[in-house]
This record gives sequence, C-alpha cells and structure tokens, in this order.
Amino acid sequence: MPVSKKIESFIERSSWIRKMFEEGNVRKAKFGVENVFDFSLGNPNLEPPIRFKQILRDLVEDSTPGKHAYMPNAGFVDTREAVANYLNKYNRQTFGPDDIVMTMGAGGALNIVLKTILNPGEEVVIPSPYFVEYNFYLDNHQGLSRAVATGSDFSLDFKAIAEAISEKTRAVLINSPNNPTGKVYTEEEVERLGALLTDNSRKFGKPIYLISDEPYRKITYDGINVPSIFNAYNESFVVTSFSKDLSLPGERIGYAAVNPEIRDKDMIFAGMVLCNRILGYVNAPAIMQRAISSLLEDSVDLSFYKKNRDMLCDGLSSCGYNFTKPGGAFYLFPRTPIEDDVAFVSALQEENILTVPGSGFGRPGYFRIAYCVDDRTIEHALPGFERVIKKFKK
Amino acid sequence: MPVSKKIESFIERSSWIRKMFEEGNVRKAKFGVENVFDFSLGNPNLEPPIRFKQILRDLVEDSTPGKHAYMPNAGFVDTREAVANYLNKYNRQTFGPDDIVMTMGAGGALNIVLKTILNPGEEVVIPSPYFVEYNFYLDNHQGLSRAVATGSDFSLDFKAIAEAISEKTRAVLINSPNNPTGKVYTEEEVERLGALLTDNSRKFGKPIYLISDEPYRKITYDGINVPSIFNAYNESFVVTSFSKDLSLPGERIGYAAVNPEIRDKDMIFAGMVLCNRILGYVNAPAIMQRAISSLLEDSVDLSFYKKNRDMLCDGLSSCGYNFTKPGGAFYLFPRTPIEDDVAFVSALQEENILTVPGSGFGRPGYFRIAYCVDDRTIEHALPGFERVIKKFKK
Repeated sequence: MPVSKKIESFIERSSWIRKMFEEGNVRKAKFGVENVFDFSLGNPNLEPPIRFKQILRDLVEDSTPGKHAYMPNAGFVDTREAVANYLNKYNRQTFGPDDIVMTMGAGGALNIVLKTILNPGEEVVIPSPYFVEYNFYLDNHQGLSRAVATGSDFSLDFKAIAEAISEKTRAVLINSPNNPTGKVYTEEEVERLGALLTDNSRKFGKPIYLISDEPYRKITYDGINVPSIFNAYNESFVVTSFSKDLSLPGERIGYAAVNPEIRDKDMIFAGMVLCNRILGYVNAPAIMQRAISSLLEDSVDLSFYKKNRDMLCDGLSSCGYNFTKPGGAFYLFPRTPIEDDVAFVSALQEENILTVPGSGFGRPGYFRIAYCVDDRTIEHALPGFERVIKKFKK
Repeated sequence: MPVSKKIESFIERSSWIRKMFEEGNVRKAKFGVENVFDFSLGNPNLEPPIRFKQILRDLVEDSTPGKHAYMPNAGFVDTREAVANYLNKYNRQTFGPDDIVMTMGAGGALNIVLKTILNPGEEVVIPSPYFVEYNFYLDNHQGLSRAVATGSDFSLDFKAIAEAISEKTRAVLINSPNNPTGKVYTEEEVERLGALLTDNSRKFGKPIYLISDEPYRKITYDGINVPSIFNAYNESFVVTSFSKDLSLPGERIGYAAVNPEIRDKDMIFAGMVLCNRILGYVNAPAIMQRAISSLLEDSVDLSFYKKNRDMLCDGLSSCGYNFTKPGGAFYLFPRTPIEDDVAFVSALQEENILTVPGSGFGRPGYFRIAYCVDDRTIEHALPGFERVIKKFKK
C-alpha cells in the first residue's frame, strides 16, 4: 500500500466531497464561473481591512534585524502581550503573554491543545452538527469524538451532554458562533455548561476541559454578543484565528489562549508550546504575528455579511425553506425538504448552486449555505433555490 | 494529570536542554548579551537577501483580490509550477505542480510525508547523529526511529543500514547537508543508497521510501554539490524550506516534492495534500508562497558562512580540537576531549560559550557548534574554547 491504511480510508471517505467539488469545477468550466453559484466554502469574499495593507507596508520597510528569524515557539512576546491585553477587556481574569500561544490559525491552535491534553482513546464531547475537520484533528492525537445532538434550534442539550460524559471524557469542544449553523450560545447556556463541567470534574475526580473554537466571535448580528467561556469555567481554552474577521485565511494566523486560572497552568502552557514546536508548526508566521498585533480591534465590514444573511433568509423563507435565522458566522443551515440531503444538494447542483449536505456535519436532513459571497451570487441563485424546493414540495 | 502522559514525559526529557537554555539566559542577563557566545541555535544571523524586501513590497501593493484567501491546500498553482521548474533544472524527471505541496517549512513538509506513509509501529531508518526533532515527528504519526551510526567522518555505513532494514521498515530518512555534522553525502553514496533500497524493496515486496531533508542544499563550500536523490531512486521525497538559504525561519515556508516517477503517485500526492490539511496546517502562508516564487535561485551571501567556518575550523584546530571539516550547512560537530559531552559542554558554558552536547543528537562524545553567528562571536569565543580544551588535555 503506497499510503498508510488510515490515510487510504480518509481519501476514500472524502471522495464524494471531492466528487462534488470536481462536479462544481466541471460546471464552472462548462457554464462560466459567473453562472455557477458557489456557496460551498467558508472562504471570505471580503478583502482584509484597508489598515492591514498600511500595517504590512510599514512592516516591510522596518529594518530591525531578525524580523523574519525564529522567535520563542509561543510567538513574539509583544504580540502575545497585545493579545493578552485584548482578552483582558472582556474577561475577568488577567491574561499575560504566558497564557497565549500564537498559532497557524485556529486549526493549528486546536491541534496543539488537543495534543497537549489527550491520552490515546480519550473522548471529546462535541455538540453536533459540527465542523468535520474536528474528527481528523482528534484522530491526529488518537482521541475520539463523542457527538451529542443539539436541539432543533441548535441550542445545547444539557441532558444529552451530561449523559455523554464518562470517565473517558477529556474535554468538551464547542464552536460559537457555529459552523455550520450560525448559532451563538447564550450567556445562560455557557454558564450552565460551566456548572455542568464543574460537577462532572468533581464526579470523575479530574478536570474535564472546555475548549471553545471562536474564529467567528466578531461576526455576529442584531447586537448579539458571544459570552466568555473563561468567565464561565476555569478549566478552559479558547482557540481562534484572524481568518474570518480580518479575511486572512490563507495567511494562517491565530492563537490558543489558556485560562490563567486553570489548574497546573505552567505545565499546560509548557505542553502547548512544546506541541506547537513538535507538530512541525514551530511558530506562527512572523510577519503576520506582527501585523495582527495592531489589528486586534479591527474587522472587515460586518454589514456586508448581515446584508447577505438578510437577503438569503428573506429569499429562502418566502419560497418555503425552513431554518433558524443565524445570530453569527456566515452560514445558514436550512432543513432539506426531503430526508435525503445528499439528493437535495445534487438537485441544487443541477441549478448550478453548490452547497454542502448536512451529513457532512453529522446532521442529515439539512444543508449548509456559506454566504460569504458576492451579494449578486445570492440574488442570482434565489430563483434556482425556489425551483428546486418547488420540485420536491409539489 | 493536566497534560497527556506522553507530553508530560516529553516535557521532563527536554528539561535538561531547557535548563541549559535557561542557564544561558541567566548568563546573558548577568554578563551582558555581547559577552555570552551563543552557538546553540540554528537561527541564521544573516538578514534575507535585499530582493526579498523589494518583492514583499510589490506583493503588498498588488491589489489582486484573494491574495490572502484560501487557495488549494497544496498551495498556489503558480508557486508550485515555479518550484517544479526549478527542480527540473537539476533532476532528470519532469516535475509539475502536482508533485509539489507548499508547506510550513521543512518541519511541516516532513510531517505530511510521514503521516501519509506511516502505519502505526512502522520504522524509519535514520543515519545518526541526527536532528532530534525527527523523533517527535515520527511519534506524531506513531512511527518509530531506527538510528544507524555513520562512520567516523559521518559517511553512510551501508552494511549497518542494510542490517537495520526489516519488514517493519517504511522509509530511510537522510539529511544532507547534515545537521549536526555539516556532512554532504557524495553522489556515489546516494547512488549506492538508492541501489540498496531498490534491492530491499524487492526483497520485502514493498517500496521502502527515501526521504531527504534538504534545507541546507544551497549552503555548501569548496564547490561541493548536493547530489539529487530523485535521480538515484524513484521511491523518494524531498522536504525542504527557505528558512536557511533565504534566512526566513520565522515565516514558515517550505515544500515537499514527490518523485514524479514514484509508484502510485496520484494516491501519494492526494495523501500529502490531505495531510497538509488535516494536520491543521491547511496551507503554507499565502504571502510567503508568492514571495519565494521569485526567489528560487537566490540565497543569502554564503561567503559569510564560509568565512565563519574557516575561522572556527582554523581556530579550533590550532588549539587541538578534533573534527571533520564540514562541506555544508553551518554546523561543526567536533569530538569532546573527554567522554562525557554534557560535562564538556557545561565547562564551555563556564566560559560563556553555549553549545549543544552530541548526546542531544544521538552521538555522545561530540558537541555541536552552530556558526550562523556574527563573526566577532567566533573571534571572541576562541580563547575560551582554548582554555577549556587545555583544562581537559593537561
């Protein structure tokens, strides 16, 4: 076998997603890119804020030696200090540079946290539907996922979470605002989750960690705030990136923050820094560490995503789609009018509309629309969305 | 336990290196940075070539949309094409973009290759002494290292390599020019290694891969060329970075190249791209991919490292140190005059000279001097090197 057995099975399993992706490319080549409505990827359509360019310009001209050299594996102290100060604004703890590891985006951040804490076979409880990459990230470190379905409006099901926790549980992993649902957990939900984990940590005689994946924290609508998990629970980590709020996904910059009040903080932080190194990341890209230091309060123009959300929700609602209006991120996760979400997504594809079936996120009977696209894409796709639902609802 | 058992043991094991590092920092604080001679890190002292700044400037001003967005996980097609064309100049194969994955430096590149091919418990044969991070990289993917000592001049011991190969062997991993020895394998050695692996692949009825880690390829002296492993053996990969030849280690940019004539190339390439994604790297930093596309023929001023090498070799030789003069990279790996290399390195530390014991590379009785430093550091450290060897040779 040329590749490992595991990788071979991963390639096979991902082949239908690949097939859809390839089918999309075939359609783009056949009908023209402008006539294919691609809602399949969370690749922000907006350019980074204008200040980003000015800051990058200044960084290029800055002749301080060692700007592109190795720095501590956790990242430049200045950058970590800036991130810590930013976190101090909305958390009751006092963060310092030794609570922050700069990483290759949220993907890198989540991997270092998982590698730090997971023993082989330990489980991580994840409210579903959830971002499918989590399964790979857990498997990287021989961990196992334990999916727990959320309610019909995607809010946390505390009874189900409590039932899923066992002595094998090492952590609970949440993602808010959520990919694929756009759900933002309320302060009450987060507090209750913290209390549940406190109880269960006591019950099992060991901390059950809470990891919150928050790359969409700044992308919320209608005045919704994302509550702090640090305030709700001490044994906690936040992993995040600047990919979405600054539109920099290709640059791979993010961070992992550990609660300064977590037990055994020094050893955990040492583990995170070590894992950043030994996973081959070594450190987050130097120039982007310096760039984001001055952009922590910035974000792209969120009114663009809000406009998209509203246009899409209004359009789909008026032709009979059923969904919970998302409070954040740039995803809509409607029900499919038939049980078979893969068949429904294929029918949309016939209209040159590319989306992802809910099965890909562990929730069949739904599909995901990523609306981080040009508004004309939504406008021009709406008639197709209508034709397809009519076909199935007749 | 707050961290996993494995990470706890890694932290403990790395604690004496950390102690040395901390002792170095204590000395820098006490005696002043300029009075501590730090030869402990392979962090290039030279700044990137001047053209790098101009190219970065142009990239910042370029207003093409999507410059910082996601691209294919393997990297920008343009960049991969440029790398392929560069490889075509000194290899007999014809490389194309689908033989190249852009990565987070050589560390990222090696991890994706290892994850692609390794089943749990499979072994990788590595000529020693070798770069210690390899052990962590193998462990990330549940692989095992099988160290095979090189000769007294650090050339390959083919008999020992042949004896180490078994049905558990998945690959042989070489690093030339070598860290920590500076050894460059000759064309004859590489050809012979290729022949040995061809024989053993036949014997065991499966390909035994050859992986060559080549971040120091351009850093050679005295007209030495690094022979192509692709020409010597089909079942092969090269992993490399621009960290050393362009002095960009903090930016994390490199690539993995697979031999276009490897068996089952499509599946292997698909595996590498998948692993780049699922290890949380996702893709190499976008701006650096674009930058290095125009810098493939460039390098820092190698005469600087040559001057350092010669000054160091002359100085150490004249006071009685015993070593093989390195043909490449920026490391010297002399014998310690006493058996206990850790004790010797501690004695050097008393003179404010920071080096790394050979034990850290799997070869006790030696120590590593990284001479990618200011030439005055060498000049001012030589008297201390002399005092210490005299103490032990009296």
